[in-house]
Amino acid sequence: MIRILVTGGTFDKEYNELAGTLFFKDTHLPEMLRLGRSRLDVAVRTLMMIDSLEMTDADRALIVEHCRRSDERQIVITHGTDTMVETAQALAVALTGGTRTIVLTGAMVPYAFGSSDGLFNLGSALSFVQVLPPGVYVAMNGRCFTADRVRKNRETGVFEAI
Amino acid sequence: MIRILVTGGTFDKEYNELAGTLFFKDTHLPEMLRLGRSRLDVAVRTLMMIDSLEMTDADRALIVEHCRRSDERQIVITHGTDTMVETAQALAVALTGGTRTIVLTGAMVPYAFGSSDGLFNLGSALSFVQVLPPGVYVAMNGRCFTADRVRKNRETGVFEAI
Amino acid sequence: MIRILVTGGTFDKEYNELAGTLFFKDTHLPEMLRLGRSRLDVAVRTLMMIDSLEMTDADRALIVEHCRRSDERQIVITHGTDTMVETAQALAVALTGGTRTIVLTGAMVPYAFGSSDGLFNLGSALSFVQVLPPGVYVAMNGRCFTADRVRKNRETGVFEAI
Amino acid sequence: MIRILVTGGTFDKEYNELAGTLFFKDTHLPEMLRLGRSRLDVAVRTLMMIDSLEMTDADRALIVEHCRRSDERQIVITHGTDTMVETAQALAVALTGGTRTIVLTGAMVPYAFGSSDGLFNLGSALSFVQVLPPGVYVAMNGRCFTADRVRKNRETGVFEAI
Repeated sequence: MIRILVTGGTFDKEYNELAGTLFFKDTHLPEMLRLGRSRLDVAVRTLMMIDSLEMTDADRALIVEHCRRSDERQIVITHGTDTMVETAQALAVALTGGTRTIVLTGAMVPYAFGSSDGLFNLGSALSFVQVLPPGVYVAMNGRCFTADRVRKNRETGVFEAI
Repeated sequence: MIRILVTGGTFDKEYNELAGTLFFKDTHLPEMLRLGRSRLDVAVRTLMMIDSLEMTDADRALIVEHCRRSDERQIVITHGTDTMVETAQALAVALTGGTRTIVLTGAMVPYAFGSSDGLFNLGSALSFVQVLPPGVYVAMNGRCFTADRVRKNRETGVFEAI
Repeated sequence: MIRILVTGGTFDKEYNELAGTLFFKDTHLPEMLRLGRSRLDVAVRTLMMIDSLEMTDADRALIVEHCRRSDERQIVITHGTDTMVETAQALAVALTGGTRTIVLTGAMVPYAFGSSDGLFNLGSALSFVQVLPPGVYVAMNGRCFTADRVRKNRETGVFEAI
Repeated sequence: MIRILVTGGTFDKEYNELAGTLFFKDTHLPEMLRLGRSRLDVAVRTLMMIDSLEMTDADRALIVEHCRRSDERQIVITHGTDTMVETAQALAVALTGGTRTIVLTGAMVPYAFGSSDGLFNLGSALSFVQVLPPGVYVAMNGRCFTADRVRKNRETGVFEAI
């Protein structure tokens, strides 16, 4: 079984039509898995539903703790792209020498907005997590990076190797 | 670089609004890669644009030949789901002991119809192909099977292990 | 109150992902009205769910009868485009001198396929029906024609005045 | 010919994937007319591209002036919903006794977000403008109101008669 931990991020942003602003409500993960006709055995758990720019050290400690105590050895974490690398590195440090394969992924465009990269990234992350050796990874743009070898280029929005 | 060979299938079906029927025109692969914000180095080549129920032995021989002569060691083939397993097995037999990782994928719903599983499957196939050892695989429903261990369940539309 | 009579047509075609063919199941009208945030007082009734090329004289007699006995004076009929004009003319002949405003509309692309003209046409038909004098009309492509002054150009798919 | 004046509003909001915020770029009107297979003879002109909460008296004076000098007697104005009624009333006062039919419309959800009411409202406004007598109207939710008899209910987002 694959554990999916939801933390929010662009993935799950929605449009509030009364206020004209973006906000978080429920995760779209189950709907996305249905659309992708996924037949993987997964357990989804929402840890928080926030913009990753607002993620605190305490939030990261919570994510680390959930990974540490997870019964599953394959974990996918959906996460805002702005601080995804930071969380990946916190996980890598805290779980050094672990037996789990952890893949973080996200989206540049909200799933609810029709033209999102989210479904592509989700398919990608769920695939990498099944075959990569234990470690912490970031899966974005069809690529997969280890936590210590990646950064988000803020000008292009693209994740790249360092 | 990853080679993508396009053969048609549901992936690329479109709606002909004058005739009210489904047909093939051009592949949607480049558009899908753009939507997924893919930054993979890929080369797309359309070999044919057909329903996989109409795929002949000659068509399969052509696909085998293109894989055999491909400069790339990672190959993704988009294919109709009805005979995807048959083509995978033809490839496995013809390329025994090869050095290439070949992943076939497809879709249950045309990409052009908005609610397709295609983007999820494409993200999945492009990820599996980067990390799996040489061999021929089918990537559908988030799972990956070796060519000799899979069948399509025609009643549910789901690919399952045998 | 506006009466909406559903007869099928491209509007309501869906994709059968097991068979790879188009078919009719339930009407999308309620979902379309919801998407359009319609606040009109409407009553939807499905009379049949067929391709308009298969519509018989008996089917048309049924539509006429429902219009004749309708309590509402404003009626929108969703209909396949191929024989929409024929049904409009049958209604015009049968209901000469009537007190009802009847507007037929349809779509070139199924609503379920994401890029449909259906929502535009529905908004159009529901607007014309509220303000036009009694008579039978066809509302397509943003235009409105009386039943005796319109034809579908089969080469372009466009409805035009004659 | 129908004149379409674009002023921005939710209709034309887009998602900036680098900043994660909503913004205005170009109008989606031509794309929407294409999707609706509109065959109306229209001339689109963008006057401004703003949130209607930021519309000033000078902006409204500009809209009035464009309507006053328009060669076309049928005018559709796309507008943010928050102050649509205010602009409609400014037009009604300034153009009293005029010979033009002016219909304002908008959307609760951006067209670019896939699940918008915009296409429905556009089809509606373009239909009302062809058949209503001279005057200033608001077309939303499938309904049409004269400028002096409508308000937006800010709690429900629905336009209603007063």
